[in-house]
Parts: sequence; structure tokens; C-alpha cells
Amino acid sequence: MPELLSKLPFQGKVEQLLANPDRKTGLEKSTVDEVNLLFSGIENDCHGGLTRKSDSRMLKQYKRGTMVRNARQVSILSREELDDVASVMGIPEVKPEWVGANLVVSGIPDLTLLPPSTRLQFGSGAMIVVDIENLPCRYPAEVIARHHPDTRKGFIEAAMHKRGVVGWIECEGRVRTGDAITIWIPPRRLYPHA
Amino acid sequence: MPELLSKLPFQGKVEQLLANPDRKTGLEKSTVDEVNLLFSGIENDCHGGLTRKSDSRMLKQYKRGTMVRNARQVSILSREELDDVASVMGIPEVKPEWVGANLVVSGIPDLTLLPPSTRLQFGSGAMIVVDIENLPCRYPAEVIARHHPDTRKGFIEAAMHKRGVVGWIECEGRVRTGDAITIWIPPRRLYPHA
Repeated sequence: MPELLSKLPFQGKVEQLLANPDRKTGLEKSTVDEVNLLFSGIENDCHGGLTRKSDSRMLKQYKRGTMVRNARQVSILSREELDDVASVMGIPEVKPEWVGANLVVSGIPDLTLLPPSTRLQFGSGAMIVVDIENLPCRYPAEVIARHHPDTRKGFIEAAMHKRGVVGWIECEGRVRTGDAITIWIPPRRLYPHA
Repeated sequence: MPELLSKLPFQGKVEQLLANPDRKTGLEKSTVDEVNLLFSGIENDCHGGLTRKSDSRMLKQYKRGTMVRNARQVSILSREELDDVASVMGIPEVKPEWVGANLVVSGIPDLTLLPPSTRLQFGSGAMIVVDIENLPCRYPAEVIARHHPDTRKGFIEAAMHKRGVVGWIECEGRVRTGDAITIWIPPRRLYPHA
């Protein structure tokens, strides 16, 4: 039968993996060698869960605190985009742990612009589905400001369309630092009636 | 904070709802006045479930029978597109039950082209997220052929890009025949590196 998903002609690479079992300690996560992806999210990471309470991101869709499916189980950022953001901010680096990253990848140009429902596939068979771009908000901005009180430009402005994507687990499996990432994208077209 | 989802300037309408608790009876579903959307899918419909076994649609991504998250909990088709398909096939109608529909909607032009991660919102607060276009395959084609052995054109050809979309439940709630549908679409752009 015809194929809905197209494989991109390049692969990405897992540069760094991060998790934090305790949400109370804040946004910052710790680097680990590998993670176990479950249908409920990354094992031992506080952003997992099959459901979550809706927040300020979706106030037009849901009253705050409405129980919704968790399509933000995993936060994925690009090494190259993080470097761009640091450069625009005028600081040496934006550490992934400052912005709540779970996966830092390289080799996927404009990661943040990957279309919704893109599939990211790992060697174990594990698969993450991109729900949508992640917008920069004030929480990581505050973390960065503690480390770099003076920046040329603020995080929210510098990181627009460079803050990565969020997604959910379609197939369980382990992901290891250094893994190659195969990328499957949905049909490439614009909805004509928007 | 900035908004990721944009509301379309028109609403859709729920024309018909269908469910079938027993998969063994085949693809055909029965019309009901209302359905209850749960995180696990439509209550009392055999295509529900938090997970499902992968099938021929994803043979490039998964070995058949791999347990994956069910992003095909709901099958949504458009009244207008079904009419187009019937017209091209040269038959009076394509009944929604022949093609495994759960929701038949009207007023959403080119429903099948709605982008992945589009949100469809109902009066109760229930929300369905579009995973992806549904491709016409031989199962509904066989059902239609039993009712109309002679058609001007086959279903698979006639229904390409008119067979609706599949999706999953982001927020639970009831959906009733006649409900208005508010449509939220993700950023409208193409990935530049495909």
C-alpha cells in the first residue's frame, strides 16, 4: 500500500540524555547514559505520565488544570540550535539541563521546524512522535538568568523556533547516547483553508 | 505567551456518530446518538485502546504485530468528501459504516488534508488530536464492492486524500450528533530540509 511517512535522507544522533525523577527539584535534569522509553514516558523522569494537567500553554483550549493526554512526555532539543541561541544571547552555552531537555540531538537541521507527527526512530526500535514545537517560556529564561544575569538578548526572544519539540512514545525501547536517529515525516503540504 | 495553535475561521458539525464494540463482526459500525470519548478511545468501540498491534500501514517502521501506542483510536470522515468519492465511483453513496467511520463531519473543507496535531474540540470540552491522514485500503474497498459490484472507479483510487483522518483523544468528554467542532491547527509551514 502507499506510504504515508517518508524517510529523510539524513540521520540524527543522540548527543545527550537527561532525566529527573523529582519535579520538585525544578526544571533541571541530570545526564544519564541511556533512558528507557515507556508508553507512559521516560522511565524515572518527572515529565512522564499518560496524562497531565493542562497549563498556561493551552489556556485557549482548556481551563488550567484540565486532565489531558500527555503529548509532552519528552523534550527534544538540537545541539546546533542550542549553540545558535547561546550565540544570540552572547553567552558561551545554553546547557540542556537549564531548559529541561530530555534528549539533545545533532544532525537534524531546524529540528524545531520538524512537522507534527514526525516519527523519530532509534536502534532498539523505540519511537518518539513529535506533537509540536516547544515555545520558549519564562521558566528556562529564569534558570539561565541565574547563571548569566547579563545577556545580549533574552532567552525567550533568542530561542523562538529554536527551542526544540515535544512528543510522546509510540513504541517502547531503550535509547543510548550516540544512537543514530531515523526520521520519518508525514506528507509535506499546507492546509489550503487556513 | 505566544500561541502555537490557531483557530480556523469556520466550525465543523458532527453529522453522524458510529461505534462497534465487536471487532469480529468486521469493519462496519452502527450509528449512535452520542459517544463518550475516553483516553483509551471511544467507549464501546473496538478500535479503542491505549495501544494496538502495528499493521501493514507501518511495515517500514515496525515488524507487524509490534505493540505501539494507538494513534488510530478514532476514524473521522467528511460528508462532503464521502459524497465526492461516491460521485467518482459512480454510485449513489459511500455509507460511513462501510469504511469504518466513527465520526462523520461536515463544514470542514478538505478534512483529509488537515495537518497532523490539529485539535478538534467539541462542546463538552472533549478534544481529538489528528495523527495523520487515513489511506484508502482494500478492506473498505471489499465492503463497498459487496454492495456495488460495478463501479466506475475503484474505492482506493477514488478515495485517495478523501478518506479522512485518524486521531487520539486528548481530553475526555461526550460528543453528540449535531455538535459544533472548533478546529485548532499547528503552525502552517513546511519543513525546509525534506
